[in-house]
Amino acid sequence: MKLIVDAMGGDHAPEEIVRGAFLGMKKAEDIQILFTGDEKAIRAAMKKYDIPEDGIEIVHAPTKIEMEEDPLCILKSKKDSSMAMGLALLRDGKGDAFLSAGSTGALIVGASSRVYKVKLPGIRRVGIGAVLPLSCPVLLLDSGANIEISPEEMLQFAYMGKAYAKGVLGVKDPRVALVNNGAEECKGTELYVQSHKLLKETENLRFVGNIEGRDIPLGEADVILCDGFVGNVILKLSEGFGKFISKELKKMLGGTLRGKIAALFIYSDLKKFKSRLSYERYGGAPLLGTRYPIIKAHGSSKASAIRSAVLQAKKCYESGVCDMIARDMEQKEKGEA
Amino acid sequence: MKLIVDAMGGDHAPEEIVRGAFLGMKKAEDIQILFTGDEKAIRAAMKKYDIPEDGIEIVHAPTKIEMEEDPLCILKSKKDSSMAMGLALLRDGKGDAFLSAGSTGALIVGASSRVYKVKLPGIRRVGIGAVLPLSCPVLLLDSGANIEISPEEMLQFAYMGKAYAKGVLGVKDPRVALVNNGAEECKGTELYVQSHKLLKETENLRFVGNIEGRDIPLGEADVILCDGFVGNVILKLSEGFGKFISKELKKMLGGTLRGKIAALFIYSDLKKFKSRLSYERYGGAPLLGTRYPIIKAHGSSKASAIRSAVLQAKKCYESGVCDMIARDMEQKEKGEA
Repeated sequence: MKLIVDAMGGDHAPEEIVRGAFLGMKKAEDIQILFTGDEKAIRAAMKKYDIPEDGIEIVHAPTKIEMEEDPLCILKSKKDSSMAMGLALLRDGKGDAFLSAGSTGALIVGASSRVYKVKLPGIRRVGIGAVLPLSCPVLLLDSGANIEISPEEMLQFAYMGKAYAKGVLGVKDPRVALVNNGAEECKGTELYVQSHKLLKETENLRFVGNIEGRDIPLGEADVILCDGFVGNVILKLSEGFGKFISKELKKMLGGTLRGKIAALFIYSDLKKFKSRLSYERYGGAPLLGTRYPIIKAHGSSKASAIRSAVLQAKKCYESGVCDMIARDMEQKEKGEA
Repeated sequence: MKLIVDAMGGDHAPEEIVRGAFLGMKKAEDIQILFTGDEKAIRAAMKKYDIPEDGIEIVHAPTKIEMEEDPLCILKSKKDSSMAMGLALLRDGKGDAFLSAGSTGALIVGASSRVYKVKLPGIRRVGIGAVLPLSCPVLLLDSGANIEISPEEMLQFAYMGKAYAKGVLGVKDPRVALVNNGAEECKGTELYVQSHKLLKETENLRFVGNIEGRDIPLGEADVILCDGFVGNVILKLSEGFGKFISKELKKMLGGTLRGKIAALFIYSDLKKFKSRLSYERYGGAPLLGTRYPIIKAHGSSKASAIRSAVLQAKKCYESGVCDMIARDMEQKEKGEA
């Protein structure tokens, strides 16, 4: 497969992006990389890290999208940016998947628009998923792209989540749950009451009902659905708790001599626990509802996170996540016809 | 002060409620208890735990509200329940505050209705707060009573939260923040955009802007505002993370010999950490926007949680939280006139 990589997106671009993409390529072997971005800067990064040219292409993009820019610029003034050119190459069949650590807003606008034609037919809104590193990985969808949605869009997110959990997280028959403020069907705002009804009626979906906040960390579902406002709060609160715990453990185990001794005894378990809480492990956030896999890596990604995101893009591509979503959508339409 | 206690609410009523109320009374000294509920059962519990009658009154209530009952029953068919009679006694000046571990829904319906006249004039909706046991205690409001609210109601919640943080949590000049999916003013749904505007314009309030999920555990604000749907998710997710962490620590420190040795070295710090994560420590959830303090203890409360809630009710009463809210509301109205 050929993965298009926006070399200029993120806080540590292009060096860490280029290095991470190369690390991913080495690990995966049968993958080629097509970088978009400032050719000179990309070549300099390659030289710095002794990265050979085999399997690597560069398409020069004269500009890049800054984090604070209006996301709509990807459709107009910044069509010559590394991100816009990456999406255009994807549209034109020059690659099989796309990875960027740049502006989330611009990437969603681009992936949703007719300019780049990467949205699947019938999909109303491109969703953005996030894998929460808990007891077992849980896909949260929508995690922030769409702050106001309809029940029909919630159902489409359910299909997207199911496909991603199956294809990438390796869950055979994913349990899909709806975030809510209680277990009963009548709970929540109108959106949640109607979404519950729709999800329950849908046949090719293992809907397990509402899930309350307290059950999210306990692995009671594989896919957790909500609107993007609530999803963003859940995602960031989970990140915040991860940091909070790390800080507290550090205080407890690094602050006193007793603590330092204790830390020696549980060194390897502690390391495992910390790595489990780390968001880097599952790569970036998948955009879902597109024809081709698109991965949004965190803006602060360093090489190791980009490496994970490359492997994630490959898994997404090889397991046919996008086709699964398209098939489920078709099947549903046939059932309704 | 005299605290009215619904002796029949909660999973462990009346025994743990009666015992807990007595423990609170002993600790606080200058407090009298008025129990509502099945007199025979209350007397039996008092006898079982050798609780003397000094400072304790009982008002017999022939029925109780079951958890699965329609909350509206408190206004009609269950006016003779321990909770309804407690609210009626509060209305009639027979006590200074009310504590119940019974149905949250019924308590909110009761506290909001004209039947019991405990809502403060001018308050649109009674809110329910929750103290998150984080780096420092943080008041989350609304934590589930009102799943759909208006910006004006959000502002009223701000006044309520400010008063509680000042009076009960002991924060001199509480920082009030609005939950949102980004720091910028334009972020969030219409409710959040308009609420931000209103909060920012309000003078007698230390509004520190939007707060994202990841900053909630880090103590960046003392009062955190949101609608009850989002608040419920935040509250329960926080509870879930607390449980998750306890489980993981238990696995790490109890599963192997090395772990058990490590646990010995950090025994007291570990105990302190666990007690900090415990919700019992801050008592129950305060209902806010009422004339008198009303505390909703968790349904699963045992004696120690009820004891905390008694002390919390006393602090609420003595610090004049309800009057502070009334004064802020008045001042605002004057400013507008």
